[in-house]
Amino acid sequence: MATDTAYSSAAGDLRGPITPEGHTMVDLLTGVLPQIRSEAGDNDREGAFPVEVFGQFAKLGLMGATVPAALGGLGVHRLYDVAVALRRLAEADASTALALHVQLSRGLTLTYEWLHGPPPVRALAERLLRAMATGEAAICGALKDPPGVVTELTADGSGGWLLNGRKTLVSMAPIGTHFFVHAQRRDAGGQVLLTVPVVRRDAPGLTVAEHWDGLGMRASGTLDVSFHNCPVATDRILERGPAGARRDAVLAGQTVSSITMLGIYAGIAQAARDLAVEVCARRWSEPPSAVRTRVAEIDARLYALHAVTGTALLNADLLAADLTGDLDERGRAMMTPFQYAKMTVNQLAPAVVDDCLSLVGGQAYAGRHPLARLYRDVRAGGFMQPYSYVDGVEYLSGQALGSDRDNDYMSVRALRA
Amino acid sequence: MATDTAYSSAAGDLRGPITPEGHTMVDLLTGVLPQIRSEAGDNDREGAFPVEVFGQFAKLGLMGATVPAALGGLGVHRLYDVAVALRRLAEADASTALALHVQLSRGLTLTYEWLHGPPPVRALAERLLRAMATGEAAICGALKDPPGVVTELTADGSGGWLLNGRKTLVSMAPIGTHFFVHAQRRDAGGQVLLTVPVVRRDAPGLTVAEHWDGLGMRASGTLDVSFHNCPVATDRILERGPAGARRDAVLAGQTVSSITMLGIYAGIAQAARDLAVEVCARRWSEPPSAVRTRVAEIDARLYALHAVTGTALLNADLLAADLTGDLDERGRAMMTPFQYAKMTVNQLAPAVVDDCLSLVGGQAYAGRHPLARLYRDVRAGGFMQPYSYVDGVEYLSGQALGSDRDNDYMSVRALRA
Amino acid sequence: MATDTAYSSAAGDLRGPITPEGHTMVDLLTGVLPQIRSEAGDNDREGAFPVEVFGQFAKLGLMGATVPAALGGLGVHRLYDVAVALRRLAEADASTALALHVQLSRGLTLTYEWLHGPPPVRALAERLLRAMATGEAAICGALKDPPGVVTELTADGSGGWLLNGRKTLVSMAPIGTHFFVHAQRRDAGGQVLLTVPVVRRDAPGLTVAEHWDGLGMRASGTLDVSFHNCPVATDRILERGPAGARRDAVLAGQTVSSITMLGIYAGIAQAARDLAVEVCARRWSEPPSAVRTRVAEIDARLYALHAVTGTALLNADLLAADLTGDLDERGRAMMTPFQYAKMTVNQLAPAVVDDCLSLVGGQAYAGRHPLARLYRDVRAGGFMQPYSYVDGVEYLSGQALGSDRDNDYMSVRALRA
Amino acid sequence: MATDTAYSSAAGDLRGPITPEGHTMVDLLTGVLPQIRSEAGDNDREGAFPVEVFGQFAKLGLMGATVPAALGGLGVHRLYDVAVALRRLAEADASTALALHVQLSRGLTLTYEWLHGPPPVRALAERLLRAMATGEAAICGALKDPPGVVTELTADGSGGWLLNGRKTLVSMAPIGTHFFVHAQRRDAGGQVLLTVPVVRRDAPGLTVAEHWDGLGMRASGTLDVSFHNCPVATDRILERGPAGARRDAVLAGQTVSSITMLGIYAGIAQAARDLAVEVCARRWSEPPSAVRTRVAEIDARLYALHAVTGTALLNADLLAADLTGDLDERGRAMMTPFQYAKMTVNQLAPAVVDDCLSLVGGQAYAGRHPLARLYRDVRAGGFMQPYSYVDGVEYLSGQALGSDRDNDYMSVRALRA
Repeated sequence: MATDTAYSSAAGDLRGPITPEGHTMVDLLTGVLPQIRSEAGDNDREGAFPVEVFGQFAKLGLMGATVPAALGGLGVHRLYDVAVALRRLAEADASTALALHVQLSRGLTLTYEWLHGPPPVRALAERLLRAMATGEAAICGALKDPPGVVTELTADGSGGWLLNGRKTLVSMAPIGTHFFVHAQRRDAGGQVLLTVPVVRRDAPGLTVAEHWDGLGMRASGTLDVSFHNCPVATDRILERGPAGARRDAVLAGQTVSSITMLGIYAGIAQAARDLAVEVCARRWSEPPSAVRTRVAEIDARLYALHAVTGTALLNADLLAADLTGDLDERGRAMMTPFQYAKMTVNQLAPAVVDDCLSLVGGQAYAGRHPLARLYRDVRAGGFMQPYSYVDGVEYLSGQALGSDRDNDYMSVRALRA
Repeated sequence: MATDTAYSSAAGDLRGPITPEGHTMVDLLTGVLPQIRSEAGDNDREGAFPVEVFGQFAKLGLMGATVPAALGGLGVHRLYDVAVALRRLAEADASTALALHVQLSRGLTLTYEWLHGPPPVRALAERLLRAMATGEAAICGALKDPPGVVTELTADGSGGWLLNGRKTLVSMAPIGTHFFVHAQRRDAGGQVLLTVPVVRRDAPGLTVAEHWDGLGMRASGTLDVSFHNCPVATDRILERGPAGARRDAVLAGQTVSSITMLGIYAGIAQAARDLAVEVCARRWSEPPSAVRTRVAEIDARLYALHAVTGTALLNADLLAADLTGDLDERGRAMMTPFQYAKMTVNQLAPAVVDDCLSLVGGQAYAGRHPLARLYRDVRAGGFMQPYSYVDGVEYLSGQALGSDRDNDYMSVRALRA
Repeated sequence: MATDTAYSSAAGDLRGPITPEGHTMVDLLTGVLPQIRSEAGDNDREGAFPVEVFGQFAKLGLMGATVPAALGGLGVHRLYDVAVALRRLAEADASTALALHVQLSRGLTLTYEWLHGPPPVRALAERLLRAMATGEAAICGALKDPPGVVTELTADGSGGWLLNGRKTLVSMAPIGTHFFVHAQRRDAGGQVLLTVPVVRRDAPGLTVAEHWDGLGMRASGTLDVSFHNCPVATDRILERGPAGARRDAVLAGQTVSSITMLGIYAGIAQAARDLAVEVCARRWSEPPSAVRTRVAEIDARLYALHAVTGTALLNADLLAADLTGDLDERGRAMMTPFQYAKMTVNQLAPAVVDDCLSLVGGQAYAGRHPLARLYRDVRAGGFMQPYSYVDGVEYLSGQALGSDRDNDYMSVRALRA
Repeated sequence: MATDTAYSSAAGDLRGPITPEGHTMVDLLTGVLPQIRSEAGDNDREGAFPVEVFGQFAKLGLMGATVPAALGGLGVHRLYDVAVALRRLAEADASTALALHVQLSRGLTLTYEWLHGPPPVRALAERLLRAMATGEAAICGALKDPPGVVTELTADGSGGWLLNGRKTLVSMAPIGTHFFVHAQRRDAGGQVLLTVPVVRRDAPGLTVAEHWDGLGMRASGTLDVSFHNCPVATDRILERGPAGARRDAVLAGQTVSSITMLGIYAGIAQAARDLAVEVCARRWSEPPSAVRTRVAEIDARLYALHAVTGTALLNADLLAADLTGDLDERGRAMMTPFQYAKMTVNQLAPAVVDDCLSLVGGQAYAGRHPLARLYRDVRAGGFMQPYSYVDGVEYLSGQALGSDRDNDYMSVRALRA
C-alpha cells in the first residue's frame, strides 16, 4: 500500500490517488459508478440531471469530500486526488463529473478562505463547509454573464445590497442550494470592484432556468440563473478587490478551482479508448494496419495526456501548500503549468476520441452510441476558463516573451463589460 | 462568362460549375437555399426530413438534374458540377445535400447503365431516368446490411425472386419511391453472386423504418428498410457478377457514386469558416494572436480541401468519359485519387470546423448553434464508403506497395457475411 | 496528345506540362537529369555549384526557356509548366532546381517588362531576354540585405548612379552575369524609393563571395554579393515607386517570381517518397502496420501537395494573362491562393520527407544518404519570401479579417531598414 | 532543499535531480558546460569527438557517475537523475550527451549485473565498474550489425572463443576502452544463442573505424568497429540465452539502457526554444500573431515532453528497484510507458525545433547556426532502439490488442540475420 501510494505519487500518471483520503473518496465513488454508467445515455438524451445520484453522493459524504475532516468532511486536500476521482467518474459519465467538480473545487477554495480569509469570511466558509459535509449544501459558481448583461451589486440604501443580472452556464444548478455569484459593484469614485455575493437558492428574486440544451455535457445541470433585486447581506459577500489590479496572486485560486477538470477529459478519452480497443480486439484477430497504428498512437497520446495532467497537478498541489514566497509569482507558477497541460489536453483528448470513432466505424455515429456522447462531451474542454485557447495563447506567450497584460480573466471580463 | 467557365475549370478550386448545365442546376438550387437554411436547425433537432424542400426540388427538375436532356433531365454530366452544387447546398444544410446526393449520383450511374448496359437494363434505366426527370421517382440506394443480417434474393419457384433481409443507413428513404438493394444470391454451385434488385416502395413486404437517431446528418432521412418475401421480377435486377472476382473495373462506378459527396464536407467546412470569420471580424477590431493564426490556417486548409477535391473530381470526370483502355486500370485510376482526396478531406474538414468552434467560443457549444450542428455533421465523412479510414489505408498502401487484395468493398462485405 | 494536354490541364495534379512549349522544356531537361542526379550528392557535400550542368542548360536553350519565341527563347509562358519542370528537376537535385528557378522566373517577369514596361525598360528587357535565350546571360535576383545593411543607390553627381551595400542569399551567383539588385534611394524630399539597378558581374566594385555554407540547398550557388561604389547607368534601372505605397498590384509580380518554387518542394517530397516506397517494397513482403499506414498517408499528402500547388498555379496563370480589371485586386487574387498553397506545401513536404526517413530507418541518418539531403533541402521552403510563415499569417488573416497593412514585403523591409 | 527535492520528484517535469548524488553529478557537469557549448559548433562541422571534454569528465568522476559509491563511483542510481543530467548536457551539445549516455547507462546495467549476476559476471562487473569510476574504462555498446553481416562467436578449439564480424553506430568509440559486443553463437543443436563478449580495444583483430559522417550527432564518436578472429576469454562473456525465447524480462534492461536518452531530446528542444524565444523577444516589442501563437504552443509541447519523459522515468525507477514480482510483467511495465514517452518525444521534440527555425527565420538555415545543428541532431531520436516508430507501433498495439510476438528486438534481429 505504501509502495502503491509512493509509486502512483511518483509516477504522476493519474492512475490512482496518493493520499488515504483520496483512496476513501475513490472507493466510495466506485460503488456508485455502475448506476451512473447505466443512466448516462438516457440523461444525455433528455438533458436530465442525475438528481438521485447526487443524493447518493450526499449520503456517502462525497459532497463534502474536500471539506476538512475537522469540519466533518472526508478531508481530501490534494488536487491530484480530486482529478483522479473525476477521471474515474468521467469514464462513467462526464456530465456527472463536471457537476461534482463544482462542489469539490468549492470545498478546496472554501477551505482556503476558512484558513486564510478575514474573520467574517472564515465564519461564512465554516458554515458552508459544514453544510457541504452533511450534504445539505450544494454550492454552484455563477461566473459568466451572457453577452450584454452585467451582473451588479448595488446598495439597497439600508446597509444591505441588491443583486441584479443573469449568469449563464452554471453547472449543478438543479440541486444548487447556494450560488457564488461573480458580480461587480462600483465604489464612490466609480471604480469597478469585483465581488462575490453568496446567494441562497430560496432568495427572493433568484430564478433558476428550467433547461439547457447543450451540444454535450447535457446531464451536467448547466443552467442560467437570474437575479432581480435579490437581497444580499454584507456578511455574505466575498470582496475580490478592484478590477484591473493585475494581481497575479489570484491565479492560484483560479488554478485550484479549475485544474482538476483536466481529469474529466482524461476520463472521457480513457472511456473512448477502452471501448474502441475492446471492439477492435473482438472484431479482428489480425487487426488491419491502420487499426494497429491508431491504437498505438491512441495509447501514447493517452499516456501523454495523463502524464502532463498529473505533473501539472502535482506542481499545483506543491505550490498550493506553500504561501511563503511572492504570491504573484506563486500564482503564475501554478497557472502556467496548468495552461501547458490544458492546451495539451484539449488537443489530445479530442484527438483520442476522434480516432476511437474511426476505429469503431459507422455504428459510433448513432446518436445513442457512447462514442457519440463522448465526441460531444469532450469538446467542452476547449471552452473552459481559464483559459480558452485564444486567451491561453495570450497568457503563455506573454509569460515567455513578456507582455503588459491583465492575466485575471474575471477582471478582464468585468472591465470589458 | 467563357472566361469564368474556363477559369473555374482550370483552377479546380470548386468555386463554380464548369458546364452550362451545371450553372443551371446551381442557379435553380440557389433559389431554394434560403428556405433550406432557415429550416436546417429545426430539422436537425427533430431528425425531420425536409419533405417540402424535396417537393420544390422535384418541381424545379432538380431530382432529374443528372438525367440526360434526351430523357427530360437537366443533363448535368460532370461530377465536378455535382460536387459544386452539393457544396453550395451543404453550406445551407448538409443533411439535405446528403439526401440529394443519393438522387444525383443515381442519375449518373443509371445514365451509364442506359448507355452501356445490356438491353433489359437499358430499358429499366430509361424508365427510371425519365421518372427521375419528372420528379416522380426518388431512388434510394440500400447498401449496408446490419451486423448479422444478409439480404438475399432467392428464387420463388416460378421464375421470379423473393427478397429477404434488412438494410441500414438508407438516406432519402422518407420519400424514396424505389430502392436499389445490394443483395446476394447463390448460383447452383453455391457461389455468391452480387445482385441489385430494384424494388418499389409499395412492394409487398417492404417496410421503411420510422426514425433514425444519428449523431449528425439528422435530417437526411437515413433509415432502415426491411424486406420480407418481397417479390422482384427478373427484369428489375442488375447483376454484378460473382463476389471475390477482384475486378477493379467496378471501382469506377463506386467512384462515380461517392466522390461528389466530398463537396458536402467542403460545404460544411466553408459554412463553419464563414460563420467564425464573421463573428471574429465583428468581435475584434484588433484580433488576438491566436485568432489571426487560426484564421490563416483555416483558410489555407480550406483551399487545400477545395483544391484536392476539385482535382480528384476533374480526374474522375476525365476518366469517366473514357472507356477505351483497360477497365481495371481505369477503375484504380479513378479510385486512387478519390481516396487521396477523401483521406485529406476527412482530416481537413473536421479540423476546420473544430478551429471554428474555438474561435467562436462557448456559445458554439449550445445545441442549437449552427457550429454545434456542423461539428456533428462533419464527422459523418469518416464513415462513408468507399473507404473508411481503415480500409482506405489498406487500399492505398496496397496500391503503393503491392498487395493481393479485393478492392471491391461490396464484394468483401458479401464474402464476410 | 490533345487528350493528354486537356487531362493534365484539367487535373492540376502537376503530373505533366500543359503546353507544347512546356513539353519541349521538360523533354530537354529530361536528358540532363541522369547527370544531375549522379552529381547531386557530391555537390551537396562540397557546396559546389554544378557549373557544367548549367553549361548544358545553356546549350539546350533551357536558360531561355521562358523567353518568348520571338526573342529566341523556348516560349514557355505558363507558370504551371515551369513548376512541373522544376518538380522534375528537383526530384534529381533540389539545389539545381532552385538555381534554375532564378533564371526561369526572370524570363517570365522580364517578358512582362518587355510587353508592358516603359520604352527604356522594354529595350533593356529585350536585350536581356535575347541574351538569356542564347545562354549568354544568367540573371540573378539580389533581394535581401543582411542585418544592419541597407543597399542604396546614390547620384554620382554626373547623371549616373553609384550602388553601395551587400546582398545575401543570391542563388545561381557563381554563373550570374547580371544582378537585379533591389535597392533604395531617396528623392529630394527624403522619401524612400524602391529601385532595381541591373548590374553586370564585371561592374567595378561588385564582388561575389566565394562560398556559402547552408544547412541545405548547398549546391544552389547561393552567395553574398557586395557593391562598393558600383556605377549604374540610368537606363539600367527599374523604378518601383515609393516604399509604403501599399499598391497590392505588385503582388502579381511577386507571385509570378516565386510561385513556381512550390514545384521544387513537390519534387523533393516525391523523390523522398519514391525512395522510401522502393525500400519498403523491397524489404518487406508483408509490410508492418506502421509502414502501410505511413505509406497511405504519405501518398495522400503528396497528392494534396500536388493538387493545391497545381490549382494555385492554374489560378495564377489565368490572372497573369488578364490585365483588364483592378490591378490591386488582381495582385491579391494571385497572391492569396499562392499563400494558401505555400503554407500547405511547407507543412506537407517536410512531413512527407520526415515520414520517409522513418520508413527507411537508421541508414537514412548517414550524411550521404539521399534522404539526409532531402531532409535538409526541404526545410528551405519555410524561409522563402513571400511570405515566411509569420508574415503569411499576417497577410492571410488580414485578407480574411481586414487589416491596415502593407502587403509588399520589399516595401516593408525597406521602411524597416 | 528537502522541499526542492520533494517538489522536483513529485512534479516529474525534469527540472532538476531528485537525489543528492544526482545533484552532485549535475553540479560537476555544469562546470564543463561552457567549454562544451563553445566547441559544439566546430565539433559538429568536423565530425570531431570532444576527447578533451571526456578527459575532464574522467577527472571529475563523471565517467563513473552511475557506479555505486562502494565501488568508487558517484552512486547516481536514478534513471530520472541521469536523464536530467543528459538534458542539461544536450542543451549545450547533444552529441556529447549521446556519447556520455553510453557510459552512464552502462554503469546502471553493470551495477545490476554486479548485484544480481552469476559469480563470474559479478566479478567482471566489479572490475569494470571500478575502472569506470577512476575514469580508466570507457565502455561502448556495439549492438547493430550492418546489413548482411552477422557478428558471431565461435569456439577457438582450446576453450576460448573467437569473435568475427562488424558493428555499426557504436557511439563514444574514439575513446572506448572496452566494447560490449552483441553477438550470437550456435549451440550444438544449431540453436542461436545471444551472447555479449566484452572485448578490450587493444584486443588483436579489433579495429575502430576512423570516421563517421552522419546527418547529425556528428560529434558523438559514432563509428564502426570490426572484429577479425578476435580472441575472447570465457569469463568475459555475458550469456543472454537463446534467441526467440520471448522472455519479456529482458525489456527491463533494455529500458534501463535507453530510456535516459529521452533527456537528450528534451535538451535539444529546450535549447532550440531558448534560442528562438530570445531572438523573438529581442526582435519584436509587439510580436506578430504567429510568433505569439507558436511560442505558446512550443512551451506547451515542451512541458508535455518533459512531463511525459519525467513520468516514464519515475515509473522505470520504481520498477527497476523492485524485483519481487513476475519479471516478464515487470519488463513490459517498464517498456510500455517508455515507449509511450518515446513516441511522444519523437513527435514533440522535432516539432519544437522546427517551429523554432520558423520563428528565427532564414538565418537559421545557415549551416553553422545552432538551430541548423539542432534540426539535424533532433532527428536521431526516431532511429533509436528500442523501438523505432515502426517497431514501436507493433509493440504498443500488441500490448493493447494482444499479439503473438517477440518483443526483444535483439532477438528478432538475431533470428532475422
